[in-house]
Amino acid sequence: MAVEANQEWLKSNGDPHLVLVHRLPSFNFQLKHILQPHFHLLDPAGSPEPAGSFLSSHAQSVRALICVANTPLTAETLSLLPSLELVLASSAGVDHIDTQECRRRGIILTNASTAFAEDAADYAVTLLIDVWRRISAADRFLHAGLWPVKGGYYPLGSKLGGKRVGIVGLGSIGLEVSKRLEAFGCSIAYSSRKEKPHVPYPYHANVLDLAAHSDALVLCCSLSEQTRHIINKDVMTALGKKGVVINVGRGGLIDEKELVRFLLRGDIGGAGLDVFEDEPDVPRQLFELDNVVLSPHRAIFTPEAIEALNQLTFTNLKAFFSNKPLQSVYQIE
Amino acid sequence: MAVEANQEWLKSNGDPHLVLVHRLPSFNFQLKHILQPHFHLLDPAGSPEPAGSFLSSHAQSVRALICVANTPLTAETLSLLPSLELVLASSAGVDHIDTQECRRRGIILTNASTAFAEDAADYAVTLLIDVWRRISAADRFLHAGLWPVKGGYYPLGSKLGGKRVGIVGLGSIGLEVSKRLEAFGCSIAYSSRKEKPHVPYPYHANVLDLAAHSDALVLCCSLSEQTRHIINKDVMTALGKKGVVINVGRGGLIDEKELVRFLLRGDIGGAGLDVFEDEPDVPRQLFELDNVVLSPHRAIFTPEAIEALNQLTFTNLKAFFSNKPLQSVYQIE
Repeated sequence: MAVEANQEWLKSNGDPHLVLVHRLPSFNFQLKHILQPHFHLLDPAGSPEPAGSFLSSHAQSVRALICVANTPLTAETLSLLPSLELVLASSAGVDHIDTQECRRRGIILTNASTAFAEDAADYAVTLLIDVWRRISAADRFLHAGLWPVKGGYYPLGSKLGGKRVGIVGLGSIGLEVSKRLEAFGCSIAYSSRKEKPHVPYPYHANVLDLAAHSDALVLCCSLSEQTRHIINKDVMTALGKKGVVINVGRGGLIDEKELVRFLLRGDIGGAGLDVFEDEPDVPRQLFELDNVVLSPHRAIFTPEAIEALNQLTFTNLKAFFSNKPLQSVYQIE
Repeated sequence: MAVEANQEWLKSNGDPHLVLVHRLPSFNFQLKHILQPHFHLLDPAGSPEPAGSFLSSHAQSVRALICVANTPLTAETLSLLPSLELVLASSAGVDHIDTQECRRRGIILTNASTAFAEDAADYAVTLLIDVWRRISAADRFLHAGLWPVKGGYYPLGSKLGGKRVGIVGLGSIGLEVSKRLEAFGCSIAYSSRKEKPHVPYPYHANVLDLAAHSDALVLCCSLSEQTRHIINKDVMTALGKKGVVINVGRGGLIDEKELVRFLLRGDIGGAGLDVFEDEPDVPRQLFELDNVVLSPHRAIFTPEAIEALNQLTFTNLKAFFSNKPLQSVYQIE
């Protein structure tokens, strides 16, 4: 459904409603032209007026807020918005949002994981095969002009079929990852906050146990106080010398310093990392390793994913102001 | 089934049989230790005796020949082996073998495509996603230290879901490619020497027509006089400015000079190339392009694929000398 097809909704529902765009001035707000005809958008970062002027006139009545990219949304900011009922995160991860304060206040939080799930899963699976089959390493080998020099000398990769992949966080992204990896003949297991009903894969209550039974871990969970450094020294030891870690979640899920040590010592088999603890800084030691694939936090960035996010945001705002059910609601624990 | 488990077969079948190992001295013959207990191996390239000595004593009686890697097997060599009935190619491609002479003589040819199909398909699919999602390019971006400098400036990739992929040659490799790409939400069509029964995908009798209806072409066919430069100027034009070509077959399937021109002019969207017309030489202009992923003819190289090849060769030799059906027979046209 194209956004443009929904103009009828505006006409039939009378005046547009107030939506606060919460963003750092450096972040673009690409949805503006789509939402503006339908809602009364407040965008202090894009306004010449001082933020104080906004607060005095509107802050009391704002019920819905769009949190753009990873703009921090703190308890202090939330305290300025006493009528707030809905936060729409335009990212899959919500570690930049004070989710506990949202829960305490009964504010509903939606995220973008359903819009981004397929692209994130495509990327995660490709990072995993890339590490196992050494595709980026092969590309570097050729770019360095080494093929005519070293000839057949090139390390073998490893076959996917029969490999055991542990998915950490079996939400919408993790489920798409599992669907794809099954087509490659991998067997799937998972860990998650709770065991999922109607899921055919073996469940492990903790990541340490999952790691001990996996050839690779794919991190698809959100970052919270419970999941920070969920991939620690013990988990990497359990994963073992041939084990591979793929991260399309958040950098903070991995104890990065420990991962670098494991990789440098050869105590883990490889890593495919789209996210890092201190972006855009990446530990330089990783640049020397052929069993590591690096990517600048781009797992979900395709024009199609952005269009899906635009559609999700529009649909959710429309549903909210019509008292209809929301999509992609994030379960705060 | 482990090769070692088949010792019983030797005992129950009496003397081992004569098998000629045809290889360039620079190619390793890793199967030796597996086959030697079961067959009478002749390996002139690994013998201190001159080849003439071999010919005078054994060439008349050789019925089976293993052709190692891409060692040329010409009509002249075949003419020295009047009793030859079976050629076992240890590669998926057979363009180094005079297949017409085999057909004329009624020599059966088997290749390794069933042993290599899954690994080749894994690699082809990953090259395709890599080009569409720019994963090797992202890895290079980080290795060049550009993330902190250029920040969010990074070209968007393209989503897989909904893309139309045309598979050129729907043999065992092509079928595995299609199975995997379906899990990513791609739609599949194919061209092949003949329309395949029991295949659910749309068939195009020629590659030009397939290209006109595809967002990407994946080349999985063998190289022959019929398929040389099957990807030519007209096909690339039909594929269009956003079209992507993936080649895990043979370099000669593509008019490489034309492909380089199309890529440099931006008249085609990208390429993922594991094979080249003049290996190990790769056109250097490709090194500058971020929409090209390069690999040193490694699509099938995993320890698991080599083990599968060993098993296939052993099984086929055993079947041949027992007058049982062979696997992975190559249909010469």
